[in-house]
Amino acid sequence: MTEAIQPALAVTGFHVAGVHCGLKADGALDFALISSDRPCAAAGVFTTNQVKAAPVLYDQDLLAANGGADVRAIAVNTRCANACTGELGLANAAETARLTAERLGVPLESVLVMSTGVIGTQMPMDKIARGIDLAAAALASDDDAWHTASRGIMTTDTRPKIASTDLVEIIGGSCRITGIAKGAGMIAPNMATMLGFIVTDAALTPEQAGRLLRGAVEVSFNRIVVDGDTSTNDSVFLLANGASDLILDTPELEAQFAHALTQICVELAQSVVRDGEGATKFITIEITGAPDDTAAKQIANAIGTSPLVKTAFYGGDANWGRIIAAAGRSGVAVDPARMQLRFAATDDAPGLLLFDAGMPTHYDETAATALAQGANIVVRLDLGQGDGSALIWTCDLTHDYVSINGHYRS
Amino acid sequence: MTEAIQPALAVTGFHVAGVHCGLKADGALDFALISSDRPCAAAGVFTTNQVKAAPVLYDQDLLAANGGADVRAIAVNTRCANACTGELGLANAAETARLTAERLGVPLESVLVMSTGVIGTQMPMDKIARGIDLAAAALASDDDAWHTASRGIMTTDTRPKIASTDLVEIIGGSCRITGIAKGAGMIAPNMATMLGFIVTDAALTPEQAGRLLRGAVEVSFNRIVVDGDTSTNDSVFLLANGASDLILDTPELEAQFAHALTQICVELAQSVVRDGEGATKFITIEITGAPDDTAAKQIANAIGTSPLVKTAFYGGDANWGRIIAAAGRSGVAVDPARMQLRFAATDDAPGLLLFDAGMPTHYDETAATALAQGANIVVRLDLGQGDGSALIWTCDLTHDYVSINGHYRS
Repeated sequence: MTEAIQPALAVTGFHVAGVHCGLKADGALDFALISSDRPCAAAGVFTTNQVKAAPVLYDQDLLAANGGADVRAIAVNTRCANACTGELGLANAAETARLTAERLGVPLESVLVMSTGVIGTQMPMDKIARGIDLAAAALASDDDAWHTASRGIMTTDTRPKIASTDLVEIIGGSCRITGIAKGAGMIAPNMATMLGFIVTDAALTPEQAGRLLRGAVEVSFNRIVVDGDTSTNDSVFLLANGASDLILDTPELEAQFAHALTQICVELAQSVVRDGEGATKFITIEITGAPDDTAAKQIANAIGTSPLVKTAFYGGDANWGRIIAAAGRSGVAVDPARMQLRFAATDDAPGLLLFDAGMPTHYDETAATALAQGANIVVRLDLGQGDGSALIWTCDLTHDYVSINGHYRS
Repeated sequence: MTEAIQPALAVTGFHVAGVHCGLKADGALDFALISSDRPCAAAGVFTTNQVKAAPVLYDQDLLAANGGADVRAIAVNTRCANACTGELGLANAAETARLTAERLGVPLESVLVMSTGVIGTQMPMDKIARGIDLAAAALASDDDAWHTASRGIMTTDTRPKIASTDLVEIIGGSCRITGIAKGAGMIAPNMATMLGFIVTDAALTPEQAGRLLRGAVEVSFNRIVVDGDTSTNDSVFLLANGASDLILDTPELEAQFAHALTQICVELAQSVVRDGEGATKFITIEITGAPDDTAAKQIANAIGTSPLVKTAFYGGDANWGRIIAAAGRSGVAVDPARMQLRFAATDDAPGLLLFDAGMPTHYDETAATALAQGANIVVRLDLGQGDGSALIWTCDLTHDYVSINGHYRS
């Protein structure tokens, strides 16, 4: 079995398109469609925000009704999140699915919908209808179509996020996994965190798809934070159409697939953080020695969402006291006298010890500053309490984040 | 009984000073001292951060030991928070108190210390000693001295915070209350949130001082948020020296005093938010109709700390969907179909209804934008669930916040 992350790879039986239908004023791609020429087993992971957008509610109902056994298409629009839109919003989500099903000649119950954009505006259905028409006409199954589709779901993203891997099963049979995602702001852990869809030509049961997707999301999309704000629209789907005839009927095969799927999800999730709104740095936060994993994650999130920590890294300032202070306000019982804090430039470097036994070490300030000024920063905090650990990825808080979000709607 | 918020008023028996002792490179005032010519009843409210600065630990021990019955002085330094400094930090806090007690000729057990500044550096004790000497020599009891002292505790503050009120008891006897505070960043609710000290010439018991201070802090300093980061050093003290001979020995008198003390604390707390790092807007968040007050406060804090909400207000964008989304991720069970969201320009204006029954109203976008572009914004969210309510004050998230905190140490 071999694996390799590829720039983009079409998957047998899936057809995709990205088009401009007038949602974005600047003429950029703003609508995407994904279609399978045969029924797919499907699973979704959705936002934990209690204010869920209409498409999230629609898709949750649909998957509950059909058991994820027969999905044929996903229609994705930008500019309008269709969230906080009430009954009309739900009707518009259903109408988007109906128009898509009609245009593709597939059952209404097999079409999922996704929206991203401004919260609190109703869907411009004339433009959505045009998007469905244009995208259906543009559907294609080559690598270029995937690139185009990945650009068709971008909002404040500065670049498309796409990842693909080949799985070649050693005793014959193979499958491929390709995923695309969008997301740059309103990103917080503990939810799917963005829009993403991953397709494979492996044959999965809906139950298998759900288990595999949840497992992969937990160590990828649930580990990223840009600003701590959870979207109303976060959704990630896994669609498996079985075109490869590869059935994952042994634990070994399923584990191999799970590993590859996780790689794709990690690649996409890290792409979201690297393209975080205004981000200039990629920051890894590793917590060890916590009372348990939940406590470790709580501390990691407190650090990863701290405006003071994130602005210090933007400024290239090794102001590590803010990290200890964030841990102290996380809600977890901690003891600074037991902590050890290190900065490193890479995951495998031992790192520079800055804080130990309740006080600063005699570290070299120049070395600490150099680490804080790097494009990749690993923050390693050991709490000295237990075996709990957590790992999250985040970015810095910059002038551009403020610019982007101060004027998003205008 | 009459009351009036005054620009500054000296209080009988208290002597204060603000000096430059070399902590700040630019020659600005960086050390303050407050002294009482007789023992004070004292109470303190401290940070809830589990990583507590050495002066916080020192003062908590001191007040626990003497019961708040005999406090004579507070020494306050800037530039160094003396947090995350271990045993040496504790020794330096004690040495600061010892030098102050010696210089003033008061018992060691009667001196409190406060520090604010960078976390994780040890105290430059030579400069601290100079600060104590200079300040002790400069102690004065006039209004000007209070203005100077209020500037002596500033860090990233752009202006001093000082408030004073006269209480004239109708059947004879009177007292005065004056408070000064500092704080502009690392401000979050649920703790004292900054450095502040309030003095009065009324005669209080230590128990009375504690009860009155906690009550006033709960509806003032515990209601403000700048960035959601809780300081390691937050402390507010109330010192009562009894010089006025006014004893608050009836519930009516205590209530009158409590009202005036609360006014002072609200004035100081609001000053902190108005001077929030980089702030251009003063934002009031009122939650009503929550299941209970705790839930209401949790939602108010989620909204008040949301980077997306705060940047939208900075941009003057009435992007209210971000407010609903923040409520949805607050952890409280909410139902958007029951919510009503209004923006207003003042506390007593009815406000513009933007979101009702799960969807946007047909509001006038120009009117909404005008409200979002005002210098004072009241956000009123009714959850339609119960009788719980909360009120907090916050500010916008701006380019200047990022500039200030990206380069704080340099």
